[in-house]
Amino acid sequence: MKLATYLGDGKPRIGIVTEGRLVDAGFDGSMIDVIAAWEDLKPRFKQRVTGAGIPLSDVQLCAPVERPGKVWAIGLNYADHIAESNMETPVRQVWFTKAQTSINGPYDPILIARNAPFVDYEAELVAVVGRRCKHVAAADAADAIFGYCVGNDVTERMWQHAGPQWSLGKSFDTHAPIGPWITTADQISDPHALAITCSVNGEVRQSSNTEHLVFDLWQQIEHLSAAMTLEPGDLIFTGTPGGIGAAMEPRRFLAADDVVRCEIEELGYIEGTMKAEA
Amino acid sequence: MKLATYLGDGKPRIGIVTEGRLVDAGFDGSMIDVIAAWEDLKPRFKQRVTGAGIPLSDVQLCAPVERPGKVWAIGLNYADHIAESNMETPVRQVWFTKAQTSINGPYDPILIARNAPFVDYEAELVAVVGRRCKHVAAADAADAIFGYCVGNDVTERMWQHAGPQWSLGKSFDTHAPIGPWITTADQISDPHALAITCSVNGEVRQSSNTEHLVFDLWQQIEHLSAAMTLEPGDLIFTGTPGGIGAAMEPRRFLAADDVVRCEIEELGYIEGTMKAEA
Repeated sequence: MKLATYLGDGKPRIGIVTEGRLVDAGFDGSMIDVIAAWEDLKPRFKQRVTGAGIPLSDVQLCAPVERPGKVWAIGLNYADHIAESNMETPVRQVWFTKAQTSINGPYDPILIARNAPFVDYEAELVAVVGRRCKHVAAADAADAIFGYCVGNDVTERMWQHAGPQWSLGKSFDTHAPIGPWITTADQISDPHALAITCSVNGEVRQSSNTEHLVFDLWQQIEHLSAAMTLEPGDLIFTGTPGGIGAAMEPRRFLAADDVVRCEIEELGYIEGTMKAEA
Repeated sequence: MKLATYLGDGKPRIGIVTEGRLVDAGFDGSMIDVIAAWEDLKPRFKQRVTGAGIPLSDVQLCAPVERPGKVWAIGLNYADHIAESNMETPVRQVWFTKAQTSINGPYDPILIARNAPFVDYEAELVAVVGRRCKHVAAADAADAIFGYCVGNDVTERMWQHAGPQWSLGKSFDTHAPIGPWITTADQISDPHALAITCSVNGEVRQSSNTEHLVFDLWQQIEHLSAAMTLEPGDLIFTGTPGGIGAAMEPRRFLAADDVVRCEIEELGYIEGTMKAEA
């Protein structure tokens, strides 16, 4: 199933996406509530899909999870991105965070903040945690995942690299666009075999496949859950492939009016226009 | 006013602490709801204080903010802690995060997780954001703060330093005890002139004063809010003074049954007993 958060009468509502249309799920609550109660809700949601729905083109989609409890993102997790960053392949997973307030809708503008113009894209497969869990072995990790969406780990490079810690440069408002919806895990053939691309104004900048992850998602879940309890709706950004603007010669950062599109096979695309912060 | 979250009939409730007693605030909602509506609620809460209340010794206190949207913590922000860490004073603020799920009650056990035994204390002044704000100048930053509490930025040193990013080693479950309550900003003489100590089993390990912050809280608010919107209930850990266990010779990490107490002038103390994770 494809589950979206959309604006209905000005308020976030849960919708089911099917055949280019969106059907309201008839549910009062957030996507995190849906995920937490999914086993009970699934049959009810399936029945709703017979409804006619609204054409997707008439719907304003929000970030599918608007207020995730945690947003973890792994760095240096595709070989070509490690090479372009002049780094060595880490022997241990490298994690940073994106702030809850950086979450952005799939087609919403992406802000270039005042005095922080070195904004770059990073297309990523995003996994959505499905259940409260801790100490999950890699072999069992698939059970912990509710579904997947596309993410753009937008990054302000000066803030990222002005000191030793990256999270602040990863946490600007609007710098975590996700969507366009969550595709439940049972609908994905293999999360480690999905083409992933990022284009700017139609020019392809990143083009890879999730098969090239250094640490796969199951290892990621094992590592994170060794330290902390994962909860429904927590987001895991699984790494970005080579092709970032900061690694080009000369460097190419995003400018106002640039259109950034991140797309993943089977999951759809998100697309935002860069906009200078007022 | 001193505002606590406590367990009333098994559920988190808001309480007002006065003269060694706790009065239920008569409010249904979380501390974040209280903070967001504080201007309206303040007169009503003041009237409640005439009630007799429950002796504090009979009350089970929870973390005053149980699910903060963001928890930012600044590193290397006291000169003596920078020296013991063999680091240089940063020219720019260094920030990392603690996971929402690491929040812990003021007197709750602190877990030593499986295979992660290098656990250390860091007593810190914690500021609680009072209003939604962005691009706050240091000169205006005091208006953005709702109040203060004591925090322990508990850290697993191996996970912190096994790679370049610290946030994961800062985010273990139970590793962000805060409390015992929030003292509203109007009750604090000067947040930059408060004695701060940490003791383990009664032995003083850290003893300093918030006057020694390298970057003061107002500069911290300016820096964070340049990147992102701060929201009611967001927590800011303002740095820890010298005396951490990892810097001792030989190193001294926390062991099961150790009692760790962090205390700040005017704010009270939090005290947790170390416990091996089951």
